[in-house]
Amino acid sequence: MVKILRSTVLDAPVDMVWAVLRDFNGHDQWHPAVRSSQIERGRDGDRIGAVRRFILTDGSELREQLLTLSDLEMSFSYCLLETPVPLFNYVAHVRLIPVTDGDATFWEWSCRFDTPKGREAELEALVGAQIYQAGFDAIRAQLNAEAEHADG
Amino acid sequence: MVKILRSTVLDAPVDMVWAVLRDFNGHDQWHPAVRSSQIERGRDGDRIGAVRRFILTDGSELREQLLTLSDLEMSFSYCLLETPVPLFNYVAHVRLIPVTDGDATFWEWSCRFDTPKGREAELEALVGAQIYQAGFDAIRAQLNAEAEHADG
Amino acid sequence: MVKILRSTVLDAPVDMVWAVLRDFNGHDQWHPAVRSSQIERGRDGDRIGAVRRFILTDGSELREQLLTLSDLEMSFSYCLLETPVPLFNYVAHVRLIPVTDGDATFWEWSCRFDTPKGREAELEALVGAQIYQAGFDAIRAQLNAEAEHADG
Amino acid sequence: MVKILRSTVLDAPVDMVWAVLRDFNGHDQWHPAVRSSQIERGRDGDRIGAVRRFILTDGSELREQLLTLSDLEMSFSYCLLETPVPLFNYVAHVRLIPVTDGDATFWEWSCRFDTPKGREAELEALVGAQIYQAGFDAIRAQLNAEAEHADG
Repeated sequence: MVKILRSTVLDAPVDMVWAVLRDFNGHDQWHPAVRSSQIERGRDGDRIGAVRRFILTDGSELREQLLTLSDLEMSFSYCLLETPVPLFNYVAHVRLIPVTDGDATFWEWSCRFDTPKGREAELEALVGAQIYQAGFDAIRAQLNAEAEHADG
Repeated sequence: MVKILRSTVLDAPVDMVWAVLRDFNGHDQWHPAVRSSQIERGRDGDRIGAVRRFILTDGSELREQLLTLSDLEMSFSYCLLETPVPLFNYVAHVRLIPVTDGDATFWEWSCRFDTPKGREAELEALVGAQIYQAGFDAIRAQLNAEAEHADG
Repeated sequence: MVKILRSTVLDAPVDMVWAVLRDFNGHDQWHPAVRSSQIERGRDGDRIGAVRRFILTDGSELREQLLTLSDLEMSFSYCLLETPVPLFNYVAHVRLIPVTDGDATFWEWSCRFDTPKGREAELEALVGAQIYQAGFDAIRAQLNAEAEHADG
Repeated sequence: MVKILRSTVLDAPVDMVWAVLRDFNGHDQWHPAVRSSQIERGRDGDRIGAVRRFILTDGSELREQLLTLSDLEMSFSYCLLETPVPLFNYVAHVRLIPVTDGDATFWEWSCRFDTPKGREAELEALVGAQIYQAGFDAIRAQLNAEAEHADG
């Protein structure tokens, strides 16, 4: 089993970041790997058990199910149902914690998964860098752009 | 602030108990204090932020909001929005844990709330006995009835 | 990676059970698989980082290190340092939760470990049955004996 | 009941920060409010149940007891036993989480306590600013001094 934990700090209030991340069907609006997102059966994205279908920028498809969502803890968990890469028993967790010293946000993204022997390093790099760290960078860039726009 | 923790063990598999408790809009089907339950705006009961409106058996009304729901952890949290009794800042948590030794279920129901000075003992008894323990007893009776029916 | 979770309910107050389990150097007094226990370097058993050396009833030796101990949560965690069986990256958790309905105790014992491919089922059975469930049974028998003695 | 949560981010690896904070008897070496620290009965500071006696810079005394210590989670909890200011049922938690994006450290310090009606704001400010935030600032200054020394 591979375990990944990536975390960052964003220079924005935790409520502002949570408003963006909370939307299980909105990751296509900020994550560079996601071209489009849709919740199956026309359901709401904040319904536990909701399944989102991503079309990735390389054209492949992904289905993920929301397992946990907490406005109290500012966290959610989800699992992979279908994926073009060998990530088995993949369960991921996202949580935000306020950084009171500066009104910033601590953001942790972690997961566990199985994968065929010998492919652990490759898939750890894929998930850790191209999904999690790339997601951090995208949100940070978006917040910076908004701040500049507000200042301009 | 008053803290309450009540817990019990049910002689039923945890999945069976979770299927009943998970329904934020279904407590009128088992809790003796609840005459009817409705989710506002016709939404689904497993949507985070959903508000349920209870009419209690004494005719009074209650509104509660779902804050957290986890199929992964078999837990949920909710807060009171409107209540006929002075329970302020009331946040409650329900969680189930499997008891593998006998295929049973550990069920914990806890909360914190503020109330006017001098009324702590009264409201602790009300919530602990008439809501939580009465809920335990009702589910236990229902499971026993189902088991007898299955045996009969 | 193998995950094990075993849990039981004991008909005794949680403080009484915690007083027994809390002693990281006292498992030889109740666990049938442990002949003797000693903390290395003469240190106290409730010191984080303490290493206990078990001699098992089959004569083999085991070294385990205390990673976490909480009187607040009634829980502890430990890892294996040396073992006669192939349990790698073994980290275990024990926690108690009060069962208020009857003044009883919920006891959960869980772990994760790696082991050579093909030996997962064997080692899961060994740990789950001969260590965890056998521990539950031993404490239960001991509590029953004490209760009978008190009654007699 | 008053709840306080203060958190910061330090530009240092989490292991380095944990090595400093973990020592329940070492806070006199970095916290500006603490003149001296001693563990009662000559015990070790990483023993659960250990009691530390602080002499503060204003000459007053404080006794606190270690309730939880986790090298696994990089966290500890403690309660006040004796204090010159009215902090009742005071239980505090410290935890560190790695910030992988930059190899930094998220540090959270939180507590709950009761205090006489009307003194909540005063004591919240005292604990939040003079204990928690002042502790953050002191460790940050110390890390900066070490870094400059290493560079010099």
